[in-house]
Amino acid sequence: MFILTSLVFNDGVKKSSYSTCVNNIVSNILQSSTLVPTPVGMERLKSVQHVIVVLSGKGGVGKSTVAVQLALALRAKGKKVGLLDVDLCGPSIPKMFNLEGQSIHQCSEGWLPVYVDPEQKLGVMSIAFLLENEEEAVIWRGPKKTAMIRQFLSDVHWQDTEYLIIDTPPGTSDEHISVMENLRAFNPDGAILVTTPQAVAVGDVRRELTFCRKTGIPVIGIIENMSGYMCPHCSECTNIFSSGGGEALAKEAGVQFLGCVPVTKELAAGVSAGQSATQLPSVPAIEKVADRLIALDKDLP
Amino acid sequence: MFILTSLVFNDGVKKSSYSTCVNNIVSNILQSSTLVPTPVGMERLKSVQHVIVVLSGKGGVGKSTVAVQLALALRAKGKKVGLLDVDLCGPSIPKMFNLEGQSIHQCSEGWLPVYVDPEQKLGVMSIAFLLENEEEAVIWRGPKKTAMIRQFLSDVHWQDTEYLIIDTPPGTSDEHISVMENLRAFNPDGAILVTTPQAVAVGDVRRELTFCRKTGIPVIGIIENMSGYMCPHCSECTNIFSSGGGEALAKEAGVQFLGCVPVTKELAAGVSAGQSATQLPSVPAIEKVADRLIALDKDLP
Repeated sequence: MFILTSLVFNDGVKKSSYSTCVNNIVSNILQSSTLVPTPVGMERLKSVQHVIVVLSGKGGVGKSTVAVQLALALRAKGKKVGLLDVDLCGPSIPKMFNLEGQSIHQCSEGWLPVYVDPEQKLGVMSIAFLLENEEEAVIWRGPKKTAMIRQFLSDVHWQDTEYLIIDTPPGTSDEHISVMENLRAFNPDGAILVTTPQAVAVGDVRRELTFCRKTGIPVIGIIENMSGYMCPHCSECTNIFSSGGGEALAKEAGVQFLGCVPVTKELAAGVSAGQSATQLPSVPAIEKVADRLIALDKDLP
Repeated sequence: MFILTSLVFNDGVKKSSYSTCVNNIVSNILQSSTLVPTPVGMERLKSVQHVIVVLSGKGGVGKSTVAVQLALALRAKGKKVGLLDVDLCGPSIPKMFNLEGQSIHQCSEGWLPVYVDPEQKLGVMSIAFLLENEEEAVIWRGPKKTAMIRQFLSDVHWQDTEYLIIDTPPGTSDEHISVMENLRAFNPDGAILVTTPQAVAVGDVRRELTFCRKTGIPVIGIIENMSGYMCPHCSECTNIFSSGGGEALAKEAGVQFLGCVPVTKELAAGVSAGQSATQLPSVPAIEKVADRLIALDKDLP
């Protein structure tokens, strides 16, 4: 096993001085303007029992926060969890776990995720681990992004991960098409759609539902995030961005409504202040979603 | 002049039964998987005096809201303004002006923007006007998006627009590269970067600053949005997402800090309830930005 450190690619992606292997692969991706064929198959994903994709049409609705909380809730229930951040232009998962500056290790089985905990029950993979510093912008057109995502899906050794949660960027573009195309063979459990209650965000989730229908991925359900804000002075809860939009949409679209997650200053400030998400209190609404996912598993033959 | 209505393309983009011209052009874009050469040049942009790009690394920081408010503030100061929404997967500008369902008109000079006001002082162009319905997802890889943006930049007749504000999706990918490449010849005034105070959003703006440096677009300044929330019950203002991150970043990066915009329930709820942004109260912080932009103009020789 060796460590990939001290790398500087074009576009600020780190280069290995130790490894030619991974270096060459990633270098191919960075220099090519066309699709690079996956150097190895997707066999490594076969060891993963469940794959869940977290989607939202609109940015900033708390998709990454929901993905992180869900991963933590599943881990707390004894599951081994993987968290794959395919937001290449704005990776935020490593920051949320205080994992900035960490590097990716490689063993004979593939790239090893960066583990959040010593028990190695929660592993994270993100392009942020390949970047020189956090100011570097990944200014890539679609084909490069597609190749990088393929690499993440094919080359990461998730070991005996029970739940792989894939956090996507906003929209329905290259990253999403690539994830869906490559996952199709693995029967992903489905997608969790995150919205805030605003009409604009709900409108974007409608488009995301269409995306799921067109790409054939089942919809596990919709989560409404930032449903209300409890004032720390008077404890009154106000619906800053109105409320109920997510539930109404779920009803209308005939998909499951998975619950409301309120904004808490504790959570927002904690993440902002550089506390790792592992130190923050758990969110009851998300715990229920985790229970539901585990129950889904039991219902299977 | 004729109206493009009753169109249904692949991917839910409307087809014209009246026009073969625009139909063919857009159809080429939709069917091609490679870059379509611009059928006409960018001459139409020459009549636009100022071009301002609104960027943010992270989604959901209120980029579109800032773009809309800025357009309204400039219009209120007597300027003729254009607002181009290049967020192809999540267009939100038309919804914010209650312009959903409107179609694009064409005259001999090109595509006409949809005007918000009878005086035609504020025109909007967005892919939403080309979609069959708001649930349609634009599931496009980069090259198609690039071609569509080129079309918006080359074929829209902005007339004697003084300020063209371009609202972009989150990130630093195809849409942004395309906008910058095509605008370079027109000496855009620069980019306004929008952030919320959270560390994650500020980190994404750092990447956006790198993007501006690499693509050579000047940075006009940084706006910090959602700086605080005033509780409607007790009037206490809390910094839900912490505060000051935008200002500190501006100082560190040596760019101008353009001001803080607080969250108001009035604004968030108004937009959500389907009120057009034109009916909402103006935002003092944004008014100041508009004054600054106009002053910049006066400073020029």
